Amino acid sequence: MTGLAHSPEKPDGPKPAMVRLRIDLAYDGTGFAGWAKQPRLRTVQGDLEAALATVLRAPVPPQITVAGRTDAGVHARGQVAHVDVDAEALGHQQPATVARRLNGLLEPDVRIKAVAVAPEGFEARFAALSRRYSYRVADGWLDPLHRHDTLAHPRPLDLDAMNMAASYLLGMHDFAAFCRRRVGATTQRTLLELAWSRDDAGVAIARVVADAFCHSMVRALVGALLEVGDGRRDVHWPAAVLAGRKREDAAKVAPARGLTLEEVRYPDDDGLRARTEQTRRRRDQPDAY
Amino acid sequence: MTGLAHSPEKPDGPKPAMVRLRIDLAYDGTGFAGWAKQPRLRTVQGDLEAALATVLRAPVPPQITVAGRTDAGVHARGQVAHVDVDAEALGHQQPATVARRLNGLLEPDVRIKAVAVAPEGFEARFAALSRRYSYRVADGWLDPLHRHDTLAHPRPLDLDAMNMAASYLLGMHDFAAFCRRRVGATTQRTLLELAWSRDDAGVAIARVVADAFCHSMVRALVGALLEVGDGRRDVHWPAAVLAGRKREDAAKVAPARGLTLEEVRYPDDDGLRARTEQTRRRRDQPDAY
Repeated sequence: MTGLAHSPEKPDGPKPAMVRLRIDLAYDGTGFAGWAKQPRLRTVQGDLEAALATVLRAPVPPQITVAGRTDAGVHARGQVAHVDVDAEALGHQQPATVARRLNGLLEPDVRIKAVAVAPEGFEARFAALSRRYSYRVADGWLDPLHRHDTLAHPRPLDLDAMNMAASYLLGMHDFAAFCRRRVGATTQRTLLELAWSRDDAGVAIARVVADAFCHSMVRALVGALLEVGDGRRDVHWPAAVLAGRKREDAAKVAPARGLTLEEVRYPDDDGLRARTEQTRRRRDQPDAY
Repeated sequence: MTGLAHSPEKPDGPKPAMVRLRIDLAYDGTGFAGWAKQPRLRTVQGDLEAALATVLRAPVPPQITVAGRTDAGVHARGQVAHVDVDAEALGHQQPATVARRLNGLLEPDVRIKAVAVAPEGFEARFAALSRRYSYRVADGWLDPLHRHDTLAHPRPLDLDAMNMAASYLLGMHDFAAFCRRRVGATTQRTLLELAWSRDDAGVAIARVVADAFCHSMVRALVGALLEVGDGRRDVHWPAAVLAGRKREDAAKVAPARGLTLEEVRYPDDDGLRARTEQTRRRRDQPDAY
């Protein structure tokens, strides 16, 4: 039965029947200290696990795994998570009912878009093929209705120069210069897309796609490209920083508020398990998001 | 000289040289009790007049006149106002400097887009040719980043039906059924456009243009069309309510949060004075916005 995921690997004791749920959600990151649970701070994971514990009457909040572990102030429109829940606790509740009850418990700055029984082999983090982020910058006036999700940049930006500079960064590289270093973690990633355009209101928006991102990578790339865009650096500078692999050479990371996780892509159902195993092999490390 | 507006009509005393400034601004209406100044409440007019008094070192805040007097919770991206200021108090400050200083004093939920010396004959309220509003409704999931400027509607909307119903309302009519009544005020308006479409994210957005609107008119029209869109009423019902001219027959007005004043249009400079005089003649009354 596709609805039942394999049980978590506990060496002893009877294994309860577990159901893996896929959760699609969105949030305004302004009021959160990021995705990852932290003591005494409001986090998306903390709020969501608490709400799920209430809906499932679970004595201990179930542990949620996420595709993109966003930092404090970063938003998401297409975040994906999974959670293994006791089939008995779920009972006769349809996934849509779980979604509705979660939305009733959560604050309006986080919304559940969908809850579904995950297909066999689904793993929110390791089965992902790619993540897509956007970064919004207003180099003219900043619409007050977008002040929480858009960076105000004081100088006009040359998007052609930024796109030229970005094109030199595409492909598989060691992004050490654009990653906050973590012990035992590779910083090799494949940058699939990085392109700037303006929306109807003139706001500059970056579309950034990679197989995965290391910590603060999008914001470090955007920080470098802003220096190109307003003329402080030439178009070859970000690629030179990339080649140097020294984080101290890079620009300041751009502020969190402009960044939104837009989409996480997965293989078709029959490719999920293979993708999970492949990803685990290649980057079994603490920051593979 | 076009920079100097005619002095206010005071019967006695020397008339100081006055300069009329045009102010273009935007605001997130969430934190305001509307445009119009009220005792003990935070209003856009109150904040702006206080900031202007500081910039001009005026002992009494200058009185600002606005094109669209928005209600509590209503937003603006294209609001226009004017204010007559003492030329001496303005001194050598360029209008752009005034704009920058105002933005330094104002909270981030209201932004000055531009300040300019108004052309001869300019009057923010009466010289306007038309006002354009938008109204945003999410009938699917509501993006948390848009929860302050978008109404969540619990049932799917048929935009074709809404556009059909809207087409019967276009033109010059007595909109008494869609206006909050005010003594001595005509409710005749010309509705120039009222059309619904979906943006890339699937949000239903109304574009509403009229020469002017009476109080709560856009929200009353949207309220009626939502009842058509979700099947509670047929497409001929709003026009029947319009013809009946009884406000008690209309639907509930839609909530403020979905509404944004997008644009105010004016004639070319040489048509300003004629338009102001024409408007004053036709609707000299308390709610001609």
